[in-house]
Amino acid sequence: MTLINGIPSDAVSANDRGLLYGDGVFRTLKRAGGVSRCWARQYAKLAADCTSLNLRCPDAAMLAAELAQLPPDCVAKIIITRGPGARGYAVVADAMPTRVVTASSLPDYPSSHSTSGVKAHLCSLRLASQPRLAGVKHLNRLENVLARMEWNDAAIAEGILLDEAGSVIEGTMSNVFALRDGVLHTPDLSRCGVAGVQRDRILAFAAELGLKTRIASLPLDALMAADEVMLCNSVIGVWQVREFNGRVWNGGAVSARLRALLDERDD
Amino acid sequence: MTLINGIPSDAVSANDRGLLYGDGVFRTLKRAGGVSRCWARQYAKLAADCTSLNLRCPDAAMLAAELAQLPPDCVAKIIITRGPGARGYAVVADAMPTRVVTASSLPDYPSSHSTSGVKAHLCSLRLASQPRLAGVKHLNRLENVLARMEWNDAAIAEGILLDEAGSVIEGTMSNVFALRDGVLHTPDLSRCGVAGVQRDRILAFAAELGLKTRIASLPLDALMAADEVMLCNSVIGVWQVREFNGRVWNGGAVSARLRALLDERDD
Repeated sequence: MTLINGIPSDAVSANDRGLLYGDGVFRTLKRAGGVSRCWARQYAKLAADCTSLNLRCPDAAMLAAELAQLPPDCVAKIIITRGPGARGYAVVADAMPTRVVTASSLPDYPSSHSTSGVKAHLCSLRLASQPRLAGVKHLNRLENVLARMEWNDAAIAEGILLDEAGSVIEGTMSNVFALRDGVLHTPDLSRCGVAGVQRDRILAFAAELGLKTRIASLPLDALMAADEVMLCNSVIGVWQVREFNGRVWNGGAVSARLRALLDERDD
Repeated sequence: MTLINGIPSDAVSANDRGLLYGDGVFRTLKRAGGVSRCWARQYAKLAADCTSLNLRCPDAAMLAAELAQLPPDCVAKIIITRGPGARGYAVVADAMPTRVVTASSLPDYPSSHSTSGVKAHLCSLRLASQPRLAGVKHLNRLENVLARMEWNDAAIAEGILLDEAGSVIEGTMSNVFALRDGVLHTPDLSRCGVAGVQRDRILAFAAELGLKTRIASLPLDALMAADEVMLCNSVIGVWQVREFNGRVWNGGAVSARLRALLDERDD
């Protein structure tokens, strides 16, 4: 099920700047029981990301109505591009954005990913530093594609990416948290990485679990020394990292509590 | 006129990884009098760029035959993407690339751009350093889009981009050369930038004009001190920079000779 500008279709113009240049942004979210999860936060991010590319963001109510046409339980994706354009990088003032609202089935990750944690790969690709695009979930995702090519082992659930300086930034499809002595550390994303909705929620809810939070550079050594390491996104929720870069962590109480909290609430 | 996988169409799948992730590469070339200019070099670059993303490159003869269906005088563009894919960054082994072959009309740049040179803007956006993608003409072009947004003045023909260290890398749509004391300097593109076909041709032909070449870091100061500064791509050929960053250059003999040489030859 795909809607292009509100109309059922499975095609976009070959001239769309989303294809030509990756000139657009997207969101991935879960629909559960007919509810588009964390919609207020998802829309706020979409709008902010559109602003960072000087894209017009479609109206929230219109997008919500389109999401409501998708299956009640699915992974929903919204793509907003700058629309079809003449050749060349220049943006015309009256560009009409293209919006794609599409569903795919919920992935069948092993339930042990949630209950026992996952094995993660340390990616050799280093994320480039581009403050103008950092944090934004834009359509230029070749770094993620190349990083994901680094492993084929089905036992590895995610790859963790560093920046040029060797600090941890994110997973290929997730944000990263490291718990140490009651403080939840997550990388500063002002130079690279995607700042996801679940990262924001963890930062917002941590105090309810008695945790302090710290957004800062997170050297790989600090991650390795953590009491618990967690990955989050809107489809997986929270996965604890069980095995990474030669270390094994056992089941963590905080990961489980955060996973439950994100799942229970919708704000 | 657009061919998608050889069939006239103006649409690609909304599920194409070219749209979802910018997972693909492209070439832009000129057709003149029914000839797809510098085709051997263009195809070699396309194939090399495909290899760098582990994409299967379509056969040269098939692409040449598709180009031959475009108008005899046009700007031709070839896009190769990884094709439609399931959700997620992982690449399936049997991915069927999508190929787009499309024509647009030749741009009507003022003839003075070639004869008298152009005014260029110094972009404030700095190119990120990503050795894994440097040189490749891939579909992740948001830096170019953002850089091109920096000016609206129609008198400015191009923007020149620096890397984080302040060295000149390229124009938003062109490669850059700086002539100093009989040596043609062009930036090293091993960390960012797109290595275009006309850059290769200038490097190959320079000796015929009695010029040495040097590929190295090109600090902005060195560009400003050049005897001539040139921009090149497959549509514009060679433009001399007449005005940039507070300096004016008068008509340059070497720019004119290189422009003529690139135009006369097809190798």
